[in-house]
Amino acid sequence: MVGPTLMRQEIGQQPEALRATIDALLPRRDEVARLAAGTRTVLFIARGTSDNAATYGSYLVEAQAGRLASLAAPSIATTYRARIDLDGVLAVALSQSGRTEEIVDTLAWARDCGAQTLAITNGGIASPLAQVADVTFETCAGIERAVPATKTFTTQLAALAVLALGLGAPLAAAELVAVPEVISDLLASPPDLDPIVGELAKVPGVVVSGRGMAYAAALELALKLKEACYLHAMGLSYADLLHGPIAVVDASTPAIVLAADSGPTLAGTVDLARRVTGVGAQAYGIGGGELLARACSAALPAPRLPEWLAPIGLIVPGQLLTEALSRRLGLDPDRPRGLSKVTQTD
Amino acid sequence: MVGPTLMRQEIGQQPEALRATIDALLPRRDEVARLAAGTRTVLFIARGTSDNAATYGSYLVEAQAGRLASLAAPSIATTYRARIDLDGVLAVALSQSGRTEEIVDTLAWARDCGAQTLAITNGGIASPLAQVADVTFETCAGIERAVPATKTFTTQLAALAVLALGLGAPLAAAELVAVPEVISDLLASPPDLDPIVGELAKVPGVVVSGRGMAYAAALELALKLKEACYLHAMGLSYADLLHGPIAVVDASTPAIVLAADSGPTLAGTVDLARRVTGVGAQAYGIGGGELLARACSAALPAPRLPEWLAPIGLIVPGQLLTEALSRRLGLDPDRPRGLSKVTQTD
Repeated sequence: MVGPTLMRQEIGQQPEALRATIDALLPRRDEVARLAAGTRTVLFIARGTSDNAATYGSYLVEAQAGRLASLAAPSIATTYRARIDLDGVLAVALSQSGRTEEIVDTLAWARDCGAQTLAITNGGIASPLAQVADVTFETCAGIERAVPATKTFTTQLAALAVLALGLGAPLAAAELVAVPEVISDLLASPPDLDPIVGELAKVPGVVVSGRGMAYAAALELALKLKEACYLHAMGLSYADLLHGPIAVVDASTPAIVLAADSGPTLAGTVDLARRVTGVGAQAYGIGGGELLARACSAALPAPRLPEWLAPIGLIVPGQLLTEALSRRLGLDPDRPRGLSKVTQTD
Repeated sequence: MVGPTLMRQEIGQQPEALRATIDALLPRRDEVARLAAGTRTVLFIARGTSDNAATYGSYLVEAQAGRLASLAAPSIATTYRARIDLDGVLAVALSQSGRTEEIVDTLAWARDCGAQTLAITNGGIASPLAQVADVTFETCAGIERAVPATKTFTTQLAALAVLALGLGAPLAAAELVAVPEVISDLLASPPDLDPIVGELAKVPGVVVSGRGMAYAAALELALKLKEACYLHAMGLSYADLLHGPIAVVDASTPAIVLAADSGPTLAGTVDLARRVTGVGAQAYGIGGGELLARACSAALPAPRLPEWLAPIGLIVPGQLLTEALSRRLGLDPDRPRGLSKVTQTD
């Protein structure tokens, strides 16, 4: 018998990785405050999994820190070579490796256009990305060997929570400090994945949806399912799903919906789940407490966290689901076809 | 024998709708210049098809008009009710009907936060959206009856091209004026869709990709295929496709790649098509001239337009493809299940 996959091991390492990251970065939130003095807008620069983390960052910055956020299109810098006045902008680049050239080049472009610059990376302070940045937040995920990112993603989210605190969001740092323990509790008694894995193994595609903060976790789960299970997983916001692609949900295309246990987006997500089951499709819930579970065909509990931190927990049952589904399909979650750990795009 | 579908008729009305829209709006570009004086950032507010138009607008504004752009998350306004200082921001809301409450409310929120406001709508100057805006650009698409938007989308793109000119982009207005004629020529000799329709009728999912300006057309084609063909269509940027979901492309999941015939993103798109066929999947090209066609398994020509205007033409073969595929699948492209013409989200 072989042991657990690297992906499964690394999912389990998240409480420790999060604790180390929060311990290292939370004391440094004043550095963000100083760096951001005189800026009004946050420009996130990222690709792939890191871009899903940036989506969380952008909701957090706008909803909680009262600043406008934008997700950069790196081709504006690297392909169109546009000049944009970025005075008054805090540019935040996220790259797990710190070595994706497109991201390094785009952060350098932002700096040259007048932005203040922050790097969030697991690649260390000697990485090319850190070399470009005014300030580097190093995540402490340790080496990640499975190709699908898990602990490098959740530690990015923790770093973004520190960013929001540094930008003056009126949130309790103690709630962030408690996150590793809450996730550890979930991992100690993981939910029974078999019923949902069995259903997902039979379908070619799935819609993954969430609203507000939870949208980032939905996008990330959709990406994981594409990467490790080759599933046609479409990550869509609650409103965008209603604005058209609800047509795609049917008996052979279920929806997975994610929500925090509380907060202003829960009611809408419960309604969405009811609408999905109302057209005869299956809805699988992740998080959202009793309310969401009752509106769904089946549900997985998520770590109970305040809404602003919920995505750090919501992705964990999704990671477990992805890993189990990949194995059920006879695939190797650690080494999906066509992918390598550091992706170079230009 | 029944006549052509409403969708097919409305695809054919685009040259006329574009000509009327350009005639009406191009003389008003100075109004944009006045409205935008003192602003530095453009915030787009939209959902669904209009959000795909906004993606085009954001590339155009950043690459050609030298201003930072951001796509708003309406829930920041309507659900989180955040207060953000939007002094120095031009907020541009797009809604075909001008009556989607979430979009109207978010534009009102932006105005209350200090933004200058522009509405782009086919709903008329009496629509709720126009009532909220400082300036309204009315598109002249006429009544659109098929649920999948066609002429209301391309006229939005034309309005956004006028916006870019008004913001001082160093581009030739005469090139925009020529667009209706070039599209008319394509519609007069439409490409043979049968080979690609036949292939797409056999697959459960497809990836649709493009880079830079063409990315917006890729997202819109993916949305059309989801709406009218219930296909698992995943719209992904060139770089995001390489950053993970390339794993999903295989013998039963082809890619459709779109590109302008010239410009800085063509070479990368050709490489992407080669990479897709290199892993044994089919790549179908739209536009991109001879270079892209040769790298693909099959290709459809698009109207030949300068790169900054290419998306207005690139979507047209995609619309024809969607309409034909929907009929081939025995569906009614005019009335997809689960959708209505004005979508209300909150």
